[in-house]
Amino acid sequence: MVASPLHPSRTDLAGSALALAGAGVVAAEPVPSSYDLDSAVFRAHEGGKLGVHATSQLRDRSDLSLLYTPGVADVSMAITENPSLAARFTSKRNTVAVVSDGTAVLGLGNIGPLGAMPVMEGKAVLFKHFADVDAVPVCMETGSVEELVEAIARIAPTYGGINLEDISAPRCFEIEARLKERLDIPVFHDDQHGTAIVVLAGLINACRVQSRDIADLRVVVSGAGAAGVAVTRLLQRAGVTDVVVCDSRGVISAERTDLSDHKPRIAATTNPRGVVGTIGAALVGADVLVGVSGGSVAETDLAGMAPEAMIFALANPTPEVHPDLAERYAAIVATGRSDFPNQINNVLAFPGIFRGALDSGATQITEAMKLAAAQAIADMVADPTPDEIVPSPFTPGVAEAVADAVRRAAS
Amino acid sequence: MVASPLHPSRTDLAGSALALAGAGVVAAEPVPSSYDLDSAVFRAHEGGKLGVHATSQLRDRSDLSLLYTPGVADVSMAITENPSLAARFTSKRNTVAVVSDGTAVLGLGNIGPLGAMPVMEGKAVLFKHFADVDAVPVCMETGSVEELVEAIARIAPTYGGINLEDISAPRCFEIEARLKERLDIPVFHDDQHGTAIVVLAGLINACRVQSRDIADLRVVVSGAGAAGVAVTRLLQRAGVTDVVVCDSRGVISAERTDLSDHKPRIAATTNPRGVVGTIGAALVGADVLVGVSGGSVAETDLAGMAPEAMIFALANPTPEVHPDLAERYAAIVATGRSDFPNQINNVLAFPGIFRGALDSGATQITEAMKLAAAQAIADMVADPTPDEIVPSPFTPGVAEAVADAVRRAAS
Repeated sequence: MVASPLHPSRTDLAGSALALAGAGVVAAEPVPSSYDLDSAVFRAHEGGKLGVHATSQLRDRSDLSLLYTPGVADVSMAITENPSLAARFTSKRNTVAVVSDGTAVLGLGNIGPLGAMPVMEGKAVLFKHFADVDAVPVCMETGSVEELVEAIARIAPTYGGINLEDISAPRCFEIEARLKERLDIPVFHDDQHGTAIVVLAGLINACRVQSRDIADLRVVVSGAGAAGVAVTRLLQRAGVTDVVVCDSRGVISAERTDLSDHKPRIAATTNPRGVVGTIGAALVGADVLVGVSGGSVAETDLAGMAPEAMIFALANPTPEVHPDLAERYAAIVATGRSDFPNQINNVLAFPGIFRGALDSGATQITEAMKLAAAQAIADMVADPTPDEIVPSPFTPGVAEAVADAVRRAAS
Repeated sequence: MVASPLHPSRTDLAGSALALAGAGVVAAEPVPSSYDLDSAVFRAHEGGKLGVHATSQLRDRSDLSLLYTPGVADVSMAITENPSLAARFTSKRNTVAVVSDGTAVLGLGNIGPLGAMPVMEGKAVLFKHFADVDAVPVCMETGSVEELVEAIARIAPTYGGINLEDISAPRCFEIEARLKERLDIPVFHDDQHGTAIVVLAGLINACRVQSRDIADLRVVVSGAGAAGVAVTRLLQRAGVTDVVVCDSRGVISAERTDLSDHKPRIAATTNPRGVVGTIGAALVGADVLVGVSGGSVAETDLAGMAPEAMIFALANPTPEVHPDLAERYAAIVATGRSDFPNQINNVLAFPGIFRGALDSGATQITEAMKLAAAQAIADMVADPTPDEIVPSPFTPGVAEAVADAVRRAAS
């Protein structure tokens, strides 16, 4: 990092009101807020969480003439002559845009692009930490599917990949599909596929614990949004044939007359036994409940599940079934929370996924890559137990293993 | 910067074929190119010139819960409640997008977004080095004015400012004007205003050298593109009343019937003496020639200039008038080149301009800021001489002085 003559790096500034005042940032009057802006969380976000640095030295006129004019002209012309050289001589090579319009941020809903910024920056921090990917937030004013696709496609030449994030369903499905068709770089909606990959990894190891075949499982997915759809599809790809999806009105079946958007397709491709009614009906005899809805599932509904059941209650911070309750009805329980065993955390997947895709020059994240990534995550647990079906985000080597699996699947 | 467990920083990788192979980047076969990809220039660009780093530490689950979920939710909600907090708790605070569609890159013309990347990255390196601004390239597929404005406006919430770069005229004028009207962050087309500010700074000191009043100068601007228009307007703001602008067909006057786009407005606001004909006619008795055209000016035309003339021949790498020739007809000569005295280099302006604008929370780069910046650059030369009318880019304190002037002009 080149030292700035103007003021010290932002790391040095963090938490120092004096230094921030020197940078002209602190307003004359305190900003009103119903949050404690001096708490540890806000201190960790003071000044933002990302910085940009030069990877080449700029010391004098000679460096300036190499890195900028006139030297840079040759690099630009060489890329114009042969565009594949951009993957060697520009930051496109290692840069992923974390793109959101802020319409479905965490469990907070449609809070817009400014509110989404801290989350997208946090994601970029994870990309860098776990897989040395240079990720940058791109938070957009929302709009129609058409408008978002146009804007993202227009800026896409800058990046080696696009991580879509926290875009509301069903818009996210069409946005991703259209960008995948249009662009020559990987496009990956993490709320869908990251979640699906880590759920599959957990399920692979849960089956190892119980010596079962994943293809034999009866699975109920509670939630038909971005994550529910992707979990369903990836489990089907992995061999699960009996998946029943429920939304807030109950089982999604061909008999429903109120299915809009993407739900008729769910009805057409799931629920082979033609279950109708409430989630309770779906759970009778089910081996697995995957909750990605945010809605709660009643204890009376859980009571019908098969012996040795598995409950993945992933809503955060309030799981669909509290783990203490889930343990009464299931042999293996997973959540989205870090304070219980078996945290299904997307960070196990997305850094390695993009590391592998960037390294291999892949133009898409394929189904084969997703399956390989799930298997690689599962394999990071040498000896799975009911309380350890997935590795910790801080288990060394997860991103490397995922990246390696993705690279192999790409070739 | 957080150490990555996966592989070392890209600085360490640069130039190491083995390390690059480890990152899976080097293609199996050498890429054909008519350029020497092993030369010093290409080595300086290997792997790109920019990286992203975290400014907060991520060591364990506790850090993870502060920087990402669940902690980040409070920061997002606080910003949603009070959007002005984004300027304190997100990277928007210090981030500028360097936006180009690659339609007018350096003197290379319309080479597209990939070819533009090395230039925009280089610009970002300069932003960081000289003013600690975190700048990121955004290279876009080109399109209509409408399409570019829509895309840039849509991603604008991410950034604290927009530096437009190397967008062809006359599109650049309307794109900038519409974005300025629409956005609440500074939008600055550097090819126009950066050039104009440094030209004015040079002219201020040239007048000090010759004890003249800038308002008395007769100025000829050769070139009616982005830079020519902006130089003309800023000199007029600074008090110059007699400006004649020439394009490749000669003097732009109200009598011309071939004026398109923005040129009728030039005709209406310049050329008070109603000069017609060639640039030679315009130069008769002129005190200043500012060349921003790339076309050459003939020696016979220069011969008519007034005594003690000033020639700013800024085309790069081939000035409109070679400095050796210019010295025969002018007392003060400036170019865009670093290998002659008086380099008119935008880097004297843009880092400090955005530093000052970001620090002051300015929503626009106003005319008053541009004039103040020019004066601040001029004042960095304590005792101007014919061979030193502007500071060097590496003169300590230039960006600070410009930023300070911009902050004062903003308040």
